[in-house]
Amino acid sequence: MNRPVVLICLESPYAFWHLSEDHERSLRTAFPHVDFRIATASALPRHLPDAQVFFGWRFEPQWLMSAPHLKWISSPAAGTDHLPVAEAAAAGVALTRSYGFHGRPMAEHAMGMVLGFSRGLFLSQRRQPNRTWWKDDLAQEFFDLAGSTMTIVGCGSIGGQLARAARAFGMNVIGVRRTPPPTPGDGITWIHASAVDQAVAAAHVVVDLLPATSTTHQFFDGALFSAFRPGALFLNLGRAMTVDQPALISALDARHLRGAALDVTDPKPLPVRHPLRRHPRVLLTPKCATFSRTYMDEAVAFFADNLHRYVTSKPLNGLADVPLFRSLTAGG
Amino acid sequence: MNRPVVLICLESPYAFWHLSEDHERSLRTAFPHVDFRIATASALPRHLPDAQVFFGWRFEPQWLMSAPHLKWISSPAAGTDHLPVAEAAAAGVALTRSYGFHGRPMAEHAMGMVLGFSRGLFLSQRRQPNRTWWKDDLAQEFFDLAGSTMTIVGCGSIGGQLARAARAFGMNVIGVRRTPPPTPGDGITWIHASAVDQAVAAAHVVVDLLPATSTTHQFFDGALFSAFRPGALFLNLGRAMTVDQPALISALDARHLRGAALDVTDPKPLPVRHPLRRHPRVLLTPKCATFSRTYMDEAVAFFADNLHRYVTSKPLNGLADVPLFRSLTAGG
Repeated sequence: MNRPVVLICLESPYAFWHLSEDHERSLRTAFPHVDFRIATASALPRHLPDAQVFFGWRFEPQWLMSAPHLKWISSPAAGTDHLPVAEAAAAGVALTRSYGFHGRPMAEHAMGMVLGFSRGLFLSQRRQPNRTWWKDDLAQEFFDLAGSTMTIVGCGSIGGQLARAARAFGMNVIGVRRTPPPTPGDGITWIHASAVDQAVAAAHVVVDLLPATSTTHQFFDGALFSAFRPGALFLNLGRAMTVDQPALISALDARHLRGAALDVTDPKPLPVRHPLRRHPRVLLTPKCATFSRTYMDEAVAFFADNLHRYVTSKPLNGLADVPLFRSLTAGG
Repeated sequence: MNRPVVLICLESPYAFWHLSEDHERSLRTAFPHVDFRIATASALPRHLPDAQVFFGWRFEPQWLMSAPHLKWISSPAAGTDHLPVAEAAAAGVALTRSYGFHGRPMAEHAMGMVLGFSRGLFLSQRRQPNRTWWKDDLAQEFFDLAGSTMTIVGCGSIGGQLARAARAFGMNVIGVRRTPPPTPGDGITWIHASAVDQAVAAAHVVVDLLPATSTTHQFFDGALFSAFRPGALFLNLGRAMTVDQPALISALDARHLRGAALDVTDPKPLPVRHPLRRHPRVLLTPKCATFSRTYMDEAVAFFADNLHRYVTSKPLNGLADVPLFRSLTAGG
């Protein structure tokens, strides 16, 4: 048998993050010459020795030793910080992330967080059980999205989708990147990461979409929070390690920030007595910004397209950058 | 002196609903031949006998008796239910509402309400102080806006603006009206009010934007709520009198509805012990959907345009319909 073995381990307690029988059937139909092995985590050791391709949420570095034929590790996630990027590169194994479908649910999530603050909805939810009327509080707190500015730090394809949602509400959008954008325009004003202070000073809303890399560790520190426009709102839908959490709490307590909405925290979950838990101007969500009922449909479509590239010897999409300083990429 | 007297009474505890000195100055500059009288409510009796035009939030029917020269009552509000529409018509006084600028803040408010439910943000806010982790609850509750359907009942110019915001998130939009839309298209599917049952049955989100008129009293009753798709979300940003509130509570308690977000309730405010106050799937906001820091700028611009029409004898914009059955238009 010369059929390439594609080993798939896509388990999740959530149906929308789990490979369904329909997905399996569609892959087998589209690739009749591929030997698909759908495995649970416990069955992986049995299949790794045969696998040429692995498609799954996580891949432990030591698994590379048991997979002598492995050529490619594919993840449905957007980030690569939970994957053995350096080890795979050293072993000559390609490693790909996925993109193009995380931005849509994340844009919904981020705009919901912004509007929950800007329209006083989180305030209202706290007031409604006990307070007779809270229209005055709301008149003080609310702000118009139209005409206000959102700065997206780490503005890649996910940020581009968020920018489109923000611009539909009449917001101005500043995108911060280390490298020039692939497609300028889109109505985004681009600012280089070295001038991030100016970019956050101009914003009513700052969104952290930074990946976890050697250069993003506590990127949002006390100095950067001080550069924020007073009364700005901070969102983190990226990685917890990019934020100096005590500095964030200080900026909130000093009322320099209007509020914060965090989909990621360190640790995860936070201890129930952690100050962010009961902070009156903090919203915490349980790392669910990419939740989407169509997630796996789109992840499988992305993988199928890449698998077609693989079997026809075309370059793969989403190849991970090898980190320069491996020691700093852990955590996040 | 033959200068027409324009009496303005625009008081509010909120700066953005109050006529500012800048607004006054801009009106006096634009209309040097008009005699503007800016009055507090208590000073109105002094000025009414001279007024040809009144611009204000409210006008009591009995004031008509003291204003023999009055030709036109202009309100910055979108609705006419707090204005003496029939009495003014009987007295030969024109009465205008305003439009074109309420939709933007209301679209922000409504989308914030929708996303607060669809992304589990209100759920998260309730869970975060005490619950270790609530990702499973959220995985059960959330839904994608993209691909889901919003039905807007009473879909006029405000609904059109909300429809654009919803469509920017990939939602399908059904607009329900009694009369054909002035400009079809816009990506809205139009359904006549007589088929509202079908329109709500198709929707994941139903938004009530009905005005208070003789035909909209308890338009949303038990029968209409039963026609909703199970698990639908209900928003009311219109008038409280359009909803049978006990029927709404029953539909929520039966879990036929996913939740409700209400900017208007009967009475306003609700008693602190009212069941909607502590309902775990209800968000109440204090009649603030039109809150906007630029409200009065836009209301004054709308009025100035109409005043220009008035002094040049052109037809006014926003003329109110005279209700057929006056007795039912009270309340709301």
